[in-house]
Amino acid sequence: MSIKLYCDLMSQPSRTLYILLKSIKCDFETKLVDLRKGEHFSDEFTRINRIQRVPVIEHNGFILSESVAIVNYLSREGIIPDILYPRDSKQKARVEEFLEWHHIGLRLHCSMYFRVKQLDPIFTGKQPEAKTVAGYENRMVQALETFSTKWLGTGTDFIVGNTITIADLFAACELEQPRMAGYDPKQHFPVISSWSKKVQEYFNPYYDEGHVIVNKVANKKKISSKI
Amino acid sequence: MSIKLYCDLMSQPSRTLYILLKSIKCDFETKLVDLRKGEHFSDEFTRINRIQRVPVIEHNGFILSESVAIVNYLSREGIIPDILYPRDSKQKARVEEFLEWHHIGLRLHCSMYFRVKQLDPIFTGKQPEAKTVAGYENRMVQALETFSTKWLGTGTDFIVGNTITIADLFAACELEQPRMAGYDPKQHFPVISSWSKKVQEYFNPYYDEGHVIVNKVANKKKISSKI
Repeated sequence: MSIKLYCDLMSQPSRTLYILLKSIKCDFETKLVDLRKGEHFSDEFTRINRIQRVPVIEHNGFILSESVAIVNYLSREGIIPDILYPRDSKQKARVEEFLEWHHIGLRLHCSMYFRVKQLDPIFTGKQPEAKTVAGYENRMVQALETFSTKWLGTGTDFIVGNTITIADLFAACELEQPRMAGYDPKQHFPVISSWSKKVQEYFNPYYDEGHVIVNKVANKKKISSKI
Repeated sequence: MSIKLYCDLMSQPSRTLYILLKSIKCDFETKLVDLRKGEHFSDEFTRINRIQRVPVIEHNGFILSESVAIVNYLSREGIIPDILYPRDSKQKARVEEFLEWHHIGLRLHCSMYFRVKQLDPIFTGKQPEAKTVAGYENRMVQALETFSTKWLGTGTDFIVGNTITIADLFAACELEQPRMAGYDPKQHFPVISSWSKKVQEYFNPYYDEGHVIVNKVANKKKISSKI
């Protein structure tokens, strides 16, 4: 079996797949695609994924993009253990229900906050208006509120029942993103804080390994905001 | 077997499921949830879906939200025929790759344009600034360009190869939404126009049946813009 993972650990779903594959002891090759250098727009990478996005896997020559499609495929191929992504139809549906919701329900808002506040100014050299940032922050906080009260905080240990699944890893990696723009969801939502500790512990040491760059950027941001 | 579909035909994924279930001659009960009257916020509907969104299905007592999770579940349960949603792992992955991309890649932009230009003014009584609408329109046009050239226009008849799948129905229903705000993707993208005719024909008479309200609103918009 040969698996290649094209990824950049600055991208949330890239981290999810990296941490997941490491934690299940899958033998895979990491192919770094540096988004900050625009390597996803290169001819070489465009031939791999015409949509020019990471993550992408190549499994015995079969190339596939979109992280959720990738975990579905790897689950069918027997590479992801049932304990993390149940095969039982109804239990699987519960995980999928979250994964489908999280694109626009959670991911969009956390990544847009990071992009507008942190990323765009680096590329454009222009600071966003305070009102614009506040708008993105408000929408993100509303999304976090929904996540904290309607997906967590319902009496179970994890998003789907009392067992950790890939839904938890996807969500946790999304919530690390705004830390790089100075907002840590764990500081504002106690339910998220205690849940994310459990996710981090379960997937460590790979969770921390996948977040080395994120932690570096987040710490730099923390220091600069104190000056 | 008992299936209930909670939906509002103003919602794109509601239409997708309605047309799909009708076309495969599935015996289901339609439970209308009028979004314009805020029925999705009612206590009764919140008990069915705490996230307060349509569509939702109830299949022999099992309640599930999120349209893509629903089609995955119904496919596993043998309710959606393989011809529309292949069971072969790699072919299925290609359909899923599109479905996962379409949330933020296509759906978000078409629905936000509709919401900002058409829906919000009805609820708030305030017209959006021309600059704001232009921003949403630009982002939608970019998304349509990507859809037209990278998912269609690659030498195959449909999104995934030469056979129609649920990916085509999901996409077609999304592209009907901005028509209600005066923008018809078919008028601007010939590739989209010829493809969508094939999708409409395949799923008719149910495609047109699912779009009666959309067509009414779109025609009204067309007439009012000519006055």
